[in-house]
Amino acid sequence: MNGFPFTYETEVRFRDLDAMRHVNNATFVTYLESARLGWWLDVTRRDGLEALDLILARTEIDYRAPAFFGEAVRVGVRCVSVRRSSFALEMRVEEGASGRLLAEARKVCVYYDFKAQRSQPIPAPIRALLVAQNPGLAKE
Amino acid sequence: MNGFPFTYETEVRFRDLDAMRHVNNATFVTYLESARLGWWLDVTRRDGLEALDLILARTEIDYRAPAFFGEAVRVGVRCVSVRRSSFALEMRVEEGASGRLLAEARKVCVYYDFKAQRSQPIPAPIRALLVAQNPGLAKE
Amino acid sequence: MNGFPFTYETEVRFRDLDAMRHVNNATFVTYLESARLGWWLDVTRRDGLEALDLILARTEIDYRAPAFFGEAVRVGVRCVSVRRSSFALEMRVEEGASGRLLAEARKVCVYYDFKAQRSQPIPAPIRALLVAQNPGLAKE
Amino acid sequence: MNGFPFTYETEVRFRDLDAMRHVNNATFVTYLESARLGWWLDVTRRDGLEALDLILARTEIDYRAPAFFGEAVRVGVRCVSVRRSSFALEMRVEEGASGRLLAEARKVCVYYDFKAQRSQPIPAPIRALLVAQNPGLAKE
Repeated sequence: MNGFPFTYETEVRFRDLDAMRHVNNATFVTYLESARLGWWLDVTRRDGLEALDLILARTEIDYRAPAFFGEAVRVGVRCVSVRRSSFALEMRVEEGASGRLLAEARKVCVYYDFKAQRSQPIPAPIRALLVAQNPGLAKE
Repeated sequence: MNGFPFTYETEVRFRDLDAMRHVNNATFVTYLESARLGWWLDVTRRDGLEALDLILARTEIDYRAPAFFGEAVRVGVRCVSVRRSSFALEMRVEEGASGRLLAEARKVCVYYDFKAQRSQPIPAPIRALLVAQNPGLAKE
Repeated sequence: MNGFPFTYETEVRFRDLDAMRHVNNATFVTYLESARLGWWLDVTRRDGLEALDLILARTEIDYRAPAFFGEAVRVGVRCVSVRRSSFALEMRVEEGASGRLLAEARKVCVYYDFKAQRSQPIPAPIRALLVAQNPGLAKE
Repeated sequence: MNGFPFTYETEVRFRDLDAMRHVNNATFVTYLESARLGWWLDVTRRDGLEALDLILARTEIDYRAPAFFGEAVRVGVRCVSVRRSSFALEMRVEEGASGRLLAEARKVCVYYDFKAQRSQPIPAPIRALLVAQNPGLAKE
């Protein structure tokens, strides 16, 4: 997806729909979650649940069009800013076959120590990987 | 809940947790959905799925603290602005027993004609009920 | 509920419905899960996720009638047999207000050591609590 | 999958896990649902929600092994008997890469008229398509 270094794709499951017969608004947030975690494992070159040392501080999502049964969903992810222990993502959700825009989102994620139950500074090697993916982040 | 004319309460189900052993971020959005729909049926004095003639245009949610198994969740809802065919809600999510702040959210909802698949103007009687609940809206 | 020493109640959330506008078949299984775990904590007088040292080996569910938006669900749980490291439950799901039968289910649960990733014998004190709730189990 | 004329594949989403860090037992039922509906649309050569004129009367599922984050799931479906207005399916759930057996299930599905809210006889052309897929059914 143009402008997004990572994309995640999934099918619309029947269970993703709600009684209005379109994909439920909270299910979009589940798609964003899978995309965000997939992006994180990809950019940090790690895998497994233990590597998901992130929590979510904020989500903004603008719903642009409904998605339906039989469709697929593609989510683009890009990191747009990095701070000491957090970073921001922009995400675009399109229908898989047509590219129809479904939603746009922005997330703030916190690098988190689940044992200590608090945020922690992003280690230099991970910061370097984020910058390697988006050189514009180095200026911050 | 102080400042919120409508509150919705629910238990944390085991299935609401994710592998991080706290309530999943998308499940919070499901709690907001139940609260929003409950508020709508209450303020418009209607019931049933046919009365849910709303779609969601935007969600913003700030996660303040995790929620855990065995806890309950209480969501306060207030309408903070009304336009021709849409309105904005503010919502607060607290833990049920302690009142601990869990999340704060803001929604933009669109009054929607599902048959025609487009937004429609909020009818005067419904607008009057929204204003009856929050007289400050009349100024807009 | 007559014949069931433990009952669990929950509301039907909007998200529990599917595109057929009734409660989804897998959501019934989530109701059974909450009921089963609630029963287990109640009968063993424990609480918290660490006390959920069970896995599910088998589910049978007969769907008797649909459940709808605005309804509530009540699940009765009884233990009908106990073996060395497993036990069987019978469950009845009714609509909360009318008592209308929605589903009947039977589960086989295994007492499980999540660290060792294998079944373990049910300790004598827990077995005694199961029998205290249903004296008929002592004969096995 | 050997012995199954239809297979459905999906990834394990992060949200499919529960607090035990494996795929939740009710999520397996969601996988079965997607597989069953995909099979139905395939065998009856139809598509869209309107073609899902089925309800579920019974599910049996035996859980054989847990599934984890990062894995995929493959479900095989075969129709094993047809009656006047219902039919039975057998399903096998394997891990996608290794073929490891995860679960075995059996369903009874009822051909259903959602407008009249009652079962209806399976039309001859659909019955013929079921038999075309599994000639053994013709004997019943």
